[in-house]
Amino acid sequence: MIRHDPVLPPEFLFPIDHWRWVESRFSEDFAGQSETTFSTANGYLGMRGGFQEGRPSFLHGTYINAFYETWPIPYGEKAFGFAKTGQTMVNVPDGKIIRLYVDDEPFTIDRATLDDYERALDFKTGTYERRTTYTTASGKQVRMRATRLVSFTDRHVAAIRFEVEVVNAKAPLVIVSEMVNHAAVDAQRRSEMPDPGGKPDLDDPRLAKTFSEQVLVPEKVETDRNRVLMGFRTRSSGLSLGCGMEHAIETENSYVVSGSCPDNCGQVIFSISAEPGKPIVLYKFLAYHTSGTETPAELRSRAGRTLDRVVARGFGDLLTDQKRFMDEFWSHSDIEISVPSVHPRLQQCLRWNLFQLLQATARVENAGVPAKGLTGQAYEGHYFWDMEAYVLPFLVYTAPRVARNLLKFRHGMLDKARERATELNQKGALFPWRTISGDEASAYYAAGTAQYHINGAIAYALKKYIEVTNDTEFLCEYGAEILVETARLWYDLGFFSERQDGKFCIHGVTGPDEYTTVVNNNTYTNLMARENLWYAAAAVERLRKEFPKAYTALAHETRLDPAEAAEWKRAADNMYVPYDQRTKINPQDDSFLDREVWDIKNTPKNKFPLLLHFHPLVIYRYQVIKQADIVLAMFLLGNEFSMEQKKRNFDYYDPLTTGDSSLSACIQAIVASEIGYDDAAIRYLRYAVLMDLADVGGNVRDGVHIASIGGTWMAVVCGLAGMRDYNGKVTFNPKPFVEKLRFQLTVRNQRLEINIENGSVTYLIKQGEGLTIYHRNEEIALKEGKAITRSVT
Amino acid sequence: MIRHDPVLPPEFLFPIDHWRWVESRFSEDFAGQSETTFSTANGYLGMRGGFQEGRPSFLHGTYINAFYETWPIPYGEKAFGFAKTGQTMVNVPDGKIIRLYVDDEPFTIDRATLDDYERALDFKTGTYERRTTYTTASGKQVRMRATRLVSFTDRHVAAIRFEVEVVNAKAPLVIVSEMVNHAAVDAQRRSEMPDPGGKPDLDDPRLAKTFSEQVLVPEKVETDRNRVLMGFRTRSSGLSLGCGMEHAIETENSYVVSGSCPDNCGQVIFSISAEPGKPIVLYKFLAYHTSGTETPAELRSRAGRTLDRVVARGFGDLLTDQKRFMDEFWSHSDIEISVPSVHPRLQQCLRWNLFQLLQATARVENAGVPAKGLTGQAYEGHYFWDMEAYVLPFLVYTAPRVARNLLKFRHGMLDKARERATELNQKGALFPWRTISGDEASAYYAAGTAQYHINGAIAYALKKYIEVTNDTEFLCEYGAEILVETARLWYDLGFFSERQDGKFCIHGVTGPDEYTTVVNNNTYTNLMARENLWYAAAAVERLRKEFPKAYTALAHETRLDPAEAAEWKRAADNMYVPYDQRTKINPQDDSFLDREVWDIKNTPKNKFPLLLHFHPLVIYRYQVIKQADIVLAMFLLGNEFSMEQKKRNFDYYDPLTTGDSSLSACIQAIVASEIGYDDAAIRYLRYAVLMDLADVGGNVRDGVHIASIGGTWMAVVCGLAGMRDYNGKVTFNPKPFVEKLRFQLTVRNQRLEINIENGSVTYLIKQGEGLTIYHRNEEIALKEGKAITRSVT
Repeated sequence: MIRHDPVLPPEFLFPIDHWRWVESRFSEDFAGQSETTFSTANGYLGMRGGFQEGRPSFLHGTYINAFYETWPIPYGEKAFGFAKTGQTMVNVPDGKIIRLYVDDEPFTIDRATLDDYERALDFKTGTYERRTTYTTASGKQVRMRATRLVSFTDRHVAAIRFEVEVVNAKAPLVIVSEMVNHAAVDAQRRSEMPDPGGKPDLDDPRLAKTFSEQVLVPEKVETDRNRVLMGFRTRSSGLSLGCGMEHAIETENSYVVSGSCPDNCGQVIFSISAEPGKPIVLYKFLAYHTSGTETPAELRSRAGRTLDRVVARGFGDLLTDQKRFMDEFWSHSDIEISVPSVHPRLQQCLRWNLFQLLQATARVENAGVPAKGLTGQAYEGHYFWDMEAYVLPFLVYTAPRVARNLLKFRHGMLDKARERATELNQKGALFPWRTISGDEASAYYAAGTAQYHINGAIAYALKKYIEVTNDTEFLCEYGAEILVETARLWYDLGFFSERQDGKFCIHGVTGPDEYTTVVNNNTYTNLMARENLWYAAAAVERLRKEFPKAYTALAHETRLDPAEAAEWKRAADNMYVPYDQRTKINPQDDSFLDREVWDIKNTPKNKFPLLLHFHPLVIYRYQVIKQADIVLAMFLLGNEFSMEQKKRNFDYYDPLTTGDSSLSACIQAIVASEIGYDDAAIRYLRYAVLMDLADVGGNVRDGVHIASIGGTWMAVVCGLAGMRDYNGKVTFNPKPFVEKLRFQLTVRNQRLEINIENGSVTYLIKQGEGLTIYHRNEEIALKEGKAITRSVT
Repeated sequence: MIRHDPVLPPEFLFPIDHWRWVESRFSEDFAGQSETTFSTANGYLGMRGGFQEGRPSFLHGTYINAFYETWPIPYGEKAFGFAKTGQTMVNVPDGKIIRLYVDDEPFTIDRATLDDYERALDFKTGTYERRTTYTTASGKQVRMRATRLVSFTDRHVAAIRFEVEVVNAKAPLVIVSEMVNHAAVDAQRRSEMPDPGGKPDLDDPRLAKTFSEQVLVPEKVETDRNRVLMGFRTRSSGLSLGCGMEHAIETENSYVVSGSCPDNCGQVIFSISAEPGKPIVLYKFLAYHTSGTETPAELRSRAGRTLDRVVARGFGDLLTDQKRFMDEFWSHSDIEISVPSVHPRLQQCLRWNLFQLLQATARVENAGVPAKGLTGQAYEGHYFWDMEAYVLPFLVYTAPRVARNLLKFRHGMLDKARERATELNQKGALFPWRTISGDEASAYYAAGTAQYHINGAIAYALKKYIEVTNDTEFLCEYGAEILVETARLWYDLGFFSERQDGKFCIHGVTGPDEYTTVVNNNTYTNLMARENLWYAAAAVERLRKEFPKAYTALAHETRLDPAEAAEWKRAADNMYVPYDQRTKINPQDDSFLDREVWDIKNTPKNKFPLLLHFHPLVIYRYQVIKQADIVLAMFLLGNEFSMEQKKRNFDYYDPLTTGDSSLSACIQAIVASEIGYDDAAIRYLRYAVLMDLADVGGNVRDGVHIASIGGTWMAVVCGLAGMRDYNGKVTFNPKPFVEKLRFQLTVRNQRLEINIENGSVTYLIKQGEGLTIYHRNEEIALKEGKAITRSVT
């Protein structure tokens, strides 16, 4: 179901550029979303793309992955087992602030008379660039240029190069460089700017917690001329933060430096007697360190040492490293694309998406990928199934080391997942629906804890990772344990139902579609549980045969009973999969088809997303879908559906799907592609790729949609190129309407390039000895360096 | 399902007395529950039965019906339409405090050497009496006697007569009489006493909200020798309270009076030089007034005027009035009973139950009946369906004027119920699951708002009231409007389902059993909705024919379309009623039988009630029942089930029923009686009648269970005497095992006495011209004064 077409901001504001996201005129209408779309991040540290002057601003945001505050989750009415502790990623001190005063008048973008303006996120250099020239009321022309980066190579570091010059006159010029704890001085959200969306924001359940007390408790601030170091501790979670800034200035003008350090703000002030044509170049280096064990004082020292190092090397070195990192990234992750029917700006938007994936994941270490990456606080900086279901496929095929880190991090949650399963009266492990610390943090279980399918997503991602990388060491060390505990949960949760002829049923769960909750036999869940059970049984068997030592360790660690795997297999073999004889479709769950059909066509546009305008009881009563559910199963487990079945299901569910979730369009694009619904495929791909840049959901100001972004990669690779990899068999089925599509995949340590162009596709091993793939039904044994071309018409 | 038999406190502590509830030795083990069971109240004002010395105390509680504080209900995750404003009955200043100091040593029950002690709630006089004699460490014997009453005739008034005498010595004696705002000086709950139950209290969702700020903001305290007047306003809801106390003293001893009045406590202090054998009698009069419109100052004046009046009349007059009121009550509401197999203390316990019904309802005016009456703050002092489904039957048959008041009060909520229906995307009116103000206050919709069946309970109670009283004026003025709006809700909520052959289905609701929530076609709900729709259609038709003016007014008020009633009838005629061919039972809902059966037998006793020990998702996944659901339908709409069907359903559901709700046993007793399961009937009746006094639920300390108490009346009248009144046809079917049962019913303004004794039953019109009733299948036309006797064997 497509309600209306997404519209990108106009080109006179945001011109086309294949390698940059560019704003060439400042427009307040787009200011909130631009703060998000111009964000810079490296997976550990993120900065929203707001202006260095600190205003105008929608939401000042600087975030460190997994640095969070906790609080007791309030309930009007409690019940046993409800998640107890809320977790929210903290807005840490903002180091990007550099305020400029000319003749003692402050400069801000929105009030100045601009002669020239451009803001860009440069995908090749990995930097944010702003170029500005303005003329003061007294006629002095001031030229500025700022380059900002969050370093991919030094994950604790961000840096800014700021150049300013008074072109045509002398002027006293003051530069105030700050590192300021916004969370202390104003509310965490929404400062000076009006809300362009006009949505009922305060009740939006997707936004982050706001605190009435100061979250970051300052421990100490020290200043030393050009340098400020600050230490904080979070009030409740007790995590430590040490951060600091240091400056270097290059100019022929005379100047004076001074510092000042109230509790929540470090300032270094440069007072300059600027001469015309004599530029001032200020370098600002930022360092952030966080820890759950070290003290703020220790981290302050660490931040100081980091600053020592990067200042010694200089900004130029950071830029060079950043460029080298980006070159390496694009060399194996770039997608060249042209499908005019999708959108003329497809290439630009897709590269922005890929760059966001990099920014969200590159340096995630011992943490997960938050739903908004590090571009906003919505969803509290929590990790959902998005990580495994939407982001990992990209990583598995382009950056397997990062994929491994994330799966290892998930494995680290296993003990807490075991505890949570016990709390829910179940054996095995139940991973939290949303979390940072590993503890369940979803305060609304019907669309939270009840989504047991997250277990299936993790097991599925693990299987993919192992199949694509052949990393059996990971399977032995970490993967098998996850598989055992997730399989145990399913086996214990479900039951062999007499009323369903002994089939294995799973009751009281919520599937991916959150517009129908707590149902029996959600088809998606049952299928994913079956896959999980089968794979767990197979993995245990494989370890027993191929890796006996690992098997012994696993059996010891998990107290594995040799009979368990057979039971898992029996449950999987007998898994109940809902099927309706009358309509010949797979019902989304046992009672889905009994419901009334929601009249989407006659629902006014301003009533979407439904979740903000209807009581859950109303929504749950209808056949109406927030996001692809059965359709997702038909992609992930596509080998278990016939083509006819896929069509029937798609035909039934597509008109019921609102797309109120950003996780939907990408998957619909893939399945529509497969079943030959090219128009729908193109339109859904357009939705997916433009999700954030065209602000389809109306809430990009709150952060990017990382799952949709990961899904966009899948929509291109699995949709346009028709890639599938069931049980490790990599198959392609490129769409004839693709004008140009070139990308690479890393499969079992080999680099495979796929190039679709002019009605044919060329497969080439760029690195590696050889690989067997499938072009449609044809098996192709590729050898290194020897391209093989096939027609795609 | 009976897990274990309820056990009353031992007789050496609580001796048998048919007309009193008596404690003859103080025991700390029962102190919390005795505070509840010795409560005095009149439906407007209630005082827990704690000691006048203020300690030991479990929970100081003085309550005024519908005097509540509000607060924003917190949600970890909000959603559209969630109830916004919490409401909680406020603990108002405690006027019962009279502290005694002999030789400057304070007296408290738990520390004194008691020579004599008795505490009693006297059902005949309507008073609380305490007799105490103790000897001080220095050998002085002190005799006390206190009589406390909350007046039934003067609903704003409570009064205490306190007599004290030093028997054997002279002694300086200080009496400190207080009116103290406990809510200001300590938390609203749980003061000095340990919790004997050892339950996980703080998370018990049934308990009341506690506030971190003072709820009652003092406006002014004035004192005038013997009198203190205080004014308060609730912080958030803005309601006013004026209260005060005045004293009179009679003694031959010399004494001095002084007063003191900090913000939250008024004190009057009597310093007496007591001579042996010269008693001191202190009279303390209390007045409470509340208002949403008047100021605290105005109410202070009103309290002063009330005190003027009652002080002038004196304590004796209040006592006399109280006794007269009780005589009148017992003259038509008493039940004489002896069924030894139920319990030897059946008579005493049943009278206590009846007395509680009186205390909860007698002077409820423009308010409802809270779930705990005015004996505790659990369930926040909210009105639930308990009022219509469990309390009204007693009132309809014994105090129709009070029943009318309650239904009129419910009618007053209609506008808010219309708003709530709109908020839930529905036409008509949806009454709040829990409320004081009329606004929905249930913070957990699955076991709250989703219980749409409250609409059906209200319509059902209305029908009963009209049938039993013939009050057509009420039907025309108030009832029909309720019926129209409730019928509209059902008609709009449900739909004619193609998949159920065009039957009318109702989805996404929760039935009375809260252990299965948000289901499709809850049988109870569908049946009650059918009754509601039918009756609404019939009522509209009746008004049109018999009361055309009322019909015109109704049509105008509700914009009634003449075609609507026919549509309601069509929906009712086609109502889908779940029936399972295989088991030949009515499934509780569409998917109930698909679930696994909870293993109640192997669930440890300390895991009950399940709601405190299992996550809702776990409970909902099973066939396990909190309270009779189908069984309740078989009582309320018993004429729609065959005897065989009743047996089959009971046989199926009874073993699944935990009785975790106090609303269950009474109903199970009635249906077990009807189907001839005498043993079960007797045991369930025992549960019902002893629910509070034997503390079956382990939480009587938090207040009495008014619904269970009302249900107990039904269990006796409808269970033991087999009374039914479908469509106004009053039928009896007494149980042969009843040794003695005499009670009266008021039917269409006639007083009918039923007397079962020695194997026969005698029906007698004590007042009225004549009435047709049925003894089993035999029609009997009763004439005034002419008893008719039939055998019951």
